[in-house]
Amino acid sequence: MTNKDARTPASTQNPTETSEATEAGKPIGWHKAYVEGSRPDLRVPVRQVHLTNGQSVTLYDTSGPYTDPLVDTDVRRGLAPLRENWIVARGDTEEYAGRPVRPEDDGIKHTSPRGGLRNLDAVFPGRPRLPRRGRAGMAVTQLAYARRGEITPEMEFVAIRENVSPEVVREEIAAGRAVLPANVNHPESEPMIIGKRFLVKVNANIGNSAVTSSIEEEVEKMTWATRWGADTVMDLSTGRNIHTTREWVLRNSPVPIGTVPLYQALEKVDGKAEELTWEIYKDTVVEQAEQGVDYMTVHAGVRLAHVPLTANRKTGIVSRGGSIMAAWCLAHHKESFLYEHFEELCEILAAYDVTYSLGDGLRPGSIADANDEAQFAELRTLGELNRIAKRHDVQTMIEGPGHVPMHKIKENIDLQQEICEEAPFYTLGPLTTDVAPAYDHITSGIGAAMIAWWGTAMLCYVTPKEHLGLPNRDDVKTGVITYKIAAHAADLAKGHPGAQEWDDALSDARFEFRWEDQFNLALDPDTARAFHDETLPAEPAKTAHFCSMCGPKFCSMKISQDIRREHGGNRTEIEEGMAQKSREFAAAGNRVYLPIAD
Amino acid sequence: MTNKDARTPASTQNPTETSEATEAGKPIGWHKAYVEGSRPDLRVPVRQVHLTNGQSVTLYDTSGPYTDPLVDTDVRRGLAPLRENWIVARGDTEEYAGRPVRPEDDGIKHTSPRGGLRNLDAVFPGRPRLPRRGRAGMAVTQLAYARRGEITPEMEFVAIRENVSPEVVREEIAAGRAVLPANVNHPESEPMIIGKRFLVKVNANIGNSAVTSSIEEEVEKMTWATRWGADTVMDLSTGRNIHTTREWVLRNSPVPIGTVPLYQALEKVDGKAEELTWEIYKDTVVEQAEQGVDYMTVHAGVRLAHVPLTANRKTGIVSRGGSIMAAWCLAHHKESFLYEHFEELCEILAAYDVTYSLGDGLRPGSIADANDEAQFAELRTLGELNRIAKRHDVQTMIEGPGHVPMHKIKENIDLQQEICEEAPFYTLGPLTTDVAPAYDHITSGIGAAMIAWWGTAMLCYVTPKEHLGLPNRDDVKTGVITYKIAAHAADLAKGHPGAQEWDDALSDARFEFRWEDQFNLALDPDTARAFHDETLPAEPAKTAHFCSMCGPKFCSMKISQDIRREHGGNRTEIEEGMAQKSREFAAAGNRVYLPIAD
Repeated sequence: MTNKDARTPASTQNPTETSEATEAGKPIGWHKAYVEGSRPDLRVPVRQVHLTNGQSVTLYDTSGPYTDPLVDTDVRRGLAPLRENWIVARGDTEEYAGRPVRPEDDGIKHTSPRGGLRNLDAVFPGRPRLPRRGRAGMAVTQLAYARRGEITPEMEFVAIRENVSPEVVREEIAAGRAVLPANVNHPESEPMIIGKRFLVKVNANIGNSAVTSSIEEEVEKMTWATRWGADTVMDLSTGRNIHTTREWVLRNSPVPIGTVPLYQALEKVDGKAEELTWEIYKDTVVEQAEQGVDYMTVHAGVRLAHVPLTANRKTGIVSRGGSIMAAWCLAHHKESFLYEHFEELCEILAAYDVTYSLGDGLRPGSIADANDEAQFAELRTLGELNRIAKRHDVQTMIEGPGHVPMHKIKENIDLQQEICEEAPFYTLGPLTTDVAPAYDHITSGIGAAMIAWWGTAMLCYVTPKEHLGLPNRDDVKTGVITYKIAAHAADLAKGHPGAQEWDDALSDARFEFRWEDQFNLALDPDTARAFHDETLPAEPAKTAHFCSMCGPKFCSMKISQDIRREHGGNRTEIEEGMAQKSREFAAAGNRVYLPIAD
Repeated sequence: MTNKDARTPASTQNPTETSEATEAGKPIGWHKAYVEGSRPDLRVPVRQVHLTNGQSVTLYDTSGPYTDPLVDTDVRRGLAPLRENWIVARGDTEEYAGRPVRPEDDGIKHTSPRGGLRNLDAVFPGRPRLPRRGRAGMAVTQLAYARRGEITPEMEFVAIRENVSPEVVREEIAAGRAVLPANVNHPESEPMIIGKRFLVKVNANIGNSAVTSSIEEEVEKMTWATRWGADTVMDLSTGRNIHTTREWVLRNSPVPIGTVPLYQALEKVDGKAEELTWEIYKDTVVEQAEQGVDYMTVHAGVRLAHVPLTANRKTGIVSRGGSIMAAWCLAHHKESFLYEHFEELCEILAAYDVTYSLGDGLRPGSIADANDEAQFAELRTLGELNRIAKRHDVQTMIEGPGHVPMHKIKENIDLQQEICEEAPFYTLGPLTTDVAPAYDHITSGIGAAMIAWWGTAMLCYVTPKEHLGLPNRDDVKTGVITYKIAAHAADLAKGHPGAQEWDDALSDARFEFRWEDQFNLALDPDTARAFHDETLPAEPAKTAHFCSMCGPKFCSMKISQDIRREHGGNRTEIEEGMAQKSREFAAAGNRVYLPIAD
C-alpha cells in the first residue's frame, strides 16, 4: 500500500491536511484533508487515514465540514454555500421573490382538530435567502451543460472524487447514464455522481412521521448518516412541520437531499388521496424546489390501467406513493395526473436542476410478488417517461425493488437498463427473503450487493427497523454501514479502479498485527476497537502478535510470518531453501511461536 | 397458506403436539411437535407455529429436546440416546474397553508451568458408557449402507425432515453428493443431512481458547446456537479441558458435532508443531471418535509442495490447521503425515462412521489472495483424497473459503463440484470485502447466500467478532440468525420445495396486519416484537392496521386492502367495476383510511 490516493488522480495528489481530528480528545488516526482542483474554491474533501507504518490511505468522504476541526459549524446558521459562486457565475439563473410559505406547508390547517399556528420558534434562523431559478424557461441542469460539452466545476469536483477524468463525468451525464443531483437552491451540497461507471452510492432515509420524532432529531440523523457514509439523504417526513424540517435539513446538509413531494401534498388535503389535484402537487414541487431539494421521487408510472394488475398480489401495493396514486386513479376513474402533466413537471424541474427519481410505486412487497406483470408494466412506463424527461434536459434515475429472491434479481437490472436506456438504477435492497423482520438490513444487504455488482448505481438503505418501526440513531448507523459494505463489495466485483487498495491496506495491517491501523481503516473503527478490547482490553494486546480468537499458540498468521521470514517471501528461494530451512529451524529450537506462547 | 406442512410428506402429516411451550410464562405462539415415521421410536421434531387466523405453519427444528416442555433435560445427565436402538439393531458394531483418558487429553502436562492434575470436578457425571466401533474392520457408515441399498432409520428421519422420499436420501448419500454425519458413539444426535439437494445447513463454531471461557459456557453456547437454528456445531476448543469440554458438549448435543483433531494433538506436544507425529494424531482421532465426534476437519490437502505457493500472498496461510501442517512440513522438509497416512485414517473413521470434512488449509485470508494457485492446488489434492475416502466407504465433505470478492465466488463452487465429484461443499462465508471488521457476519453473509444458491450444502457461520475476539452469547445468536437468512435465501433461489411457504405465511400476516403472527413466524420473534414495541408499545398497536413507519394515513397496505375490498381481488371484476367503484368511493365519503387516520 502506498500513500498514493486510490480515489483521486495522481496529478492532483496533494491533499492539504488540517490539524488532527480528535474524538473525545483521543487522536483517531485520520485527518480531514482536501484535494484542490483547477481553482482555489474547488476543494474535494477526503478522509486521510494515517498508518503506524508511516503510510497513509485516502478514502472517499461524505461527512461534510462537520469532521473538519478548522471549520466552525452551527446548525442554526447552516453550512457555507460552497457552490454559490459557480452557480451565479454561470449567469443563467436569477433570484426571485418566490412562493410565500403558508401554514399548510407545515401541515397546519383550520380543518385540523389540532389547529393552531405554525410553530414559529422552529423557523430556520440562518441567513435570509431568495430562491433562484433558470432565466425564462432555461434548463439549468448538469445534463444540459454536459450535452453542450461544458465541464462544470461540479463535474470536475466529482471527477476528483471518483478518480476519473472530468471528460468521463461529462460523457456519462450527457449520455444519461449518470446524474449529478445539484439543485441551484442547495449550494451547500458537495457534488457527487450516481452512475454505474462510478462508485456505488448509498442513500439513507430520514423523516418524522405522524407518530414520532422532531426537527432536531431529523437534522441530527442526517449528519449522523453522512458521517458513516451516506451519499444522499431522503427526507420522508409525513407529519407536521414538514416544510420547516426540510429547511433545517437542507441548510445543514453536505449531501444531496431527496424527497417524495406527494407526501406533503397529501398532508395539504388532510390525507384524502382523492382530493389531490395537479395544482396542489405542482405548488408543492415548486415549494420544495425553491428550498433546494436535489431529487424528487415521482410516482408517475402508476397508471390507471396498472392498478388491476395488483389485484391478485399477495401484498398488493407497498409503496406509499404508489398506493396513494392508485387510490386517486380509482376514486376518479381517471389517468394519473402525474402521468398526464409529466411534461409540465419536467419544465419545473429543469428550471432548478431537480433530478427525477422515477418511483416504482408498484414494486413487489413480498417474495411472492417479485417480477410480476404489475412491476414490469410500470417499468415500461418509466422507460417512456425517462425519454420525455431527457428531452427536457432533466436528469433522471429510476427506482427499483423491493422484495426479490436471488434468482430473480438480475432480470430486474437487465430489464431496467434496457428499457430505460441505461439511466441510473436506484434500488431499495432488494430483500431476498421475508422471514427475518428485525434483520432486513441483512436480508436486503445481500440483494443490494448483488444488484449493485450487476449495475445498480445507488442503493437505498434498509434499517433493522424496516417493517417494524422508525429507525433510531443506532438503526441509521447499522443501515448505513451494512449498505456501505454492499456498495464496496460491488465496487470490488466491478473492479472499480482503486477499490481494492482499501481492502489490501486493511489486510496488510491484519497480517502485520497493526491493530490500531485495522481499527482506523475499518468502516466502523469504534465498534471494531470495542469488540477487540472486550476480550483483550490491555494496551499490550494492541501490539500482540495474536488475538483472542486463537490465542498465541494457534495464530496462523504468526506461523505464516515465521515461514515467510525464513524465506524472504520469494518462491524459488523457498524451494531451494527448504532443506536448509529445516536445519535452521531445528537450530532455532524448532519454535514457530512467540516466547509468550506458554 | 394452509396448515399443510411444507417440510414433511402429506402422508405423515399428523404432528402430535405437546402442551404449550412458554417463555417467561408468556405463550410464544408455537409448539414443539413431532412427525412420526414408520416406527414409534422414529419421531421427527418440528416447530409448529400457530397463527391467529387458525392456520399453522410447520418449520424445521434444530433445537432438540430442550424446547419440549414434556422432556425433563439435565446437562449433568445428558440427552436420551435416541439412535442407540437403531445402531445396536444393525448388529455390525461392538462395545469395547476403549482408550484410557489421560491428563494430557485435557492439556495437562508435567512440562507445563501450570502443571497440576486434571480437573476431576469437571468430568461428565452422566451414565457410564463404553465406546462402540464396527466389528473387525467393518465400515459401519451411512455411505456403506446406502451403497448396499439399505434405508436406515437415520435416512428415513432426514427424509421426513426434508420432505423428500427416503429413496432420494439414500441415492444422494450413495452417490457421495450428501453426508449424514452420525458417529455410532453419538446416539443423542437427531439425524440431519448435508447435500445440495437438501435444505442449506448452517454450522456454528464454539470452543474455549487459551485466553478465555469455560466448559459451562461452551455447553450453553451449543444449546443456544441450536435453539436459533444451527444444524451442526463445531467444538474448536484449544485451551485446557479439551477432552472434558467435548464430552459435555457431545452428551448434550442434539446436532452433529465436528472438531479439528489437530488442535488437540498440538496441545499434546506443548504447541510445538514440529513435534507432532502420526501416532499422536491418530491417538487423538481415536480418542475423539470414541467420544462420538460426528465429523472431523482434516487438513491432509496441505502438502509440502504447496507451501511455497503461499510465499507471495498478502495474508499467507490463515487456517490454523493449515499453518500448523505447513510448519511441520517445513520443519522436517517432509510430506504431510496426514497425506501419507490418509488410507489408514480412512479405516479408523469408517469404524465409527466419522465423516470427513477435508479442510481447506490454504484458503485465502484476504480479497487479494482469492482463487490463487495455492488455494486451487490444495483443492485438486482434496479431490484425490475424496476419491480415496469413498473407496473406504467414508462419508466426505469438502471445506471452502474464506475471503472471496463476489465475481470470483462462482468459480469456487463450480471447480469444487467438478474436482470433488459433487461432494458436499462446506464454506466459511465467503467474506466479500475486508474493510468491515465487527460486521463480518454481514460481509460474509452476502457471499454465503450466493455460494449456497450456486450449490454449497453447508455454511459455517461468521460472527461479528470474527478477526477481533471470541464470540459471546449475543454474537453466536447474531451469527446463526445471519446465516439462517443466507441459507433460506438460497433455499428460495434454488426453488427448494416448500421453502417459500414460510415467506408467504409471513407476508400474508404482514398484509393482514396480524402482528403477533409476524413475530411468531420471524427467525427471531423476540427481537421483532421488541423493535415493534419500541415505537408502538401499546397492545392495541398489535392489531392496528398500520405501523409507526408510515403512520395511519400513509399505510400503503391499508390502501391496497381498501382497493381490493372494493373489487374482490378479481382482475376482470376490477376492470368492469372501475367506473362503478369511483361512484361507490365517492358515496362512501371518499375515505381510503381508517377513522383513526385523523
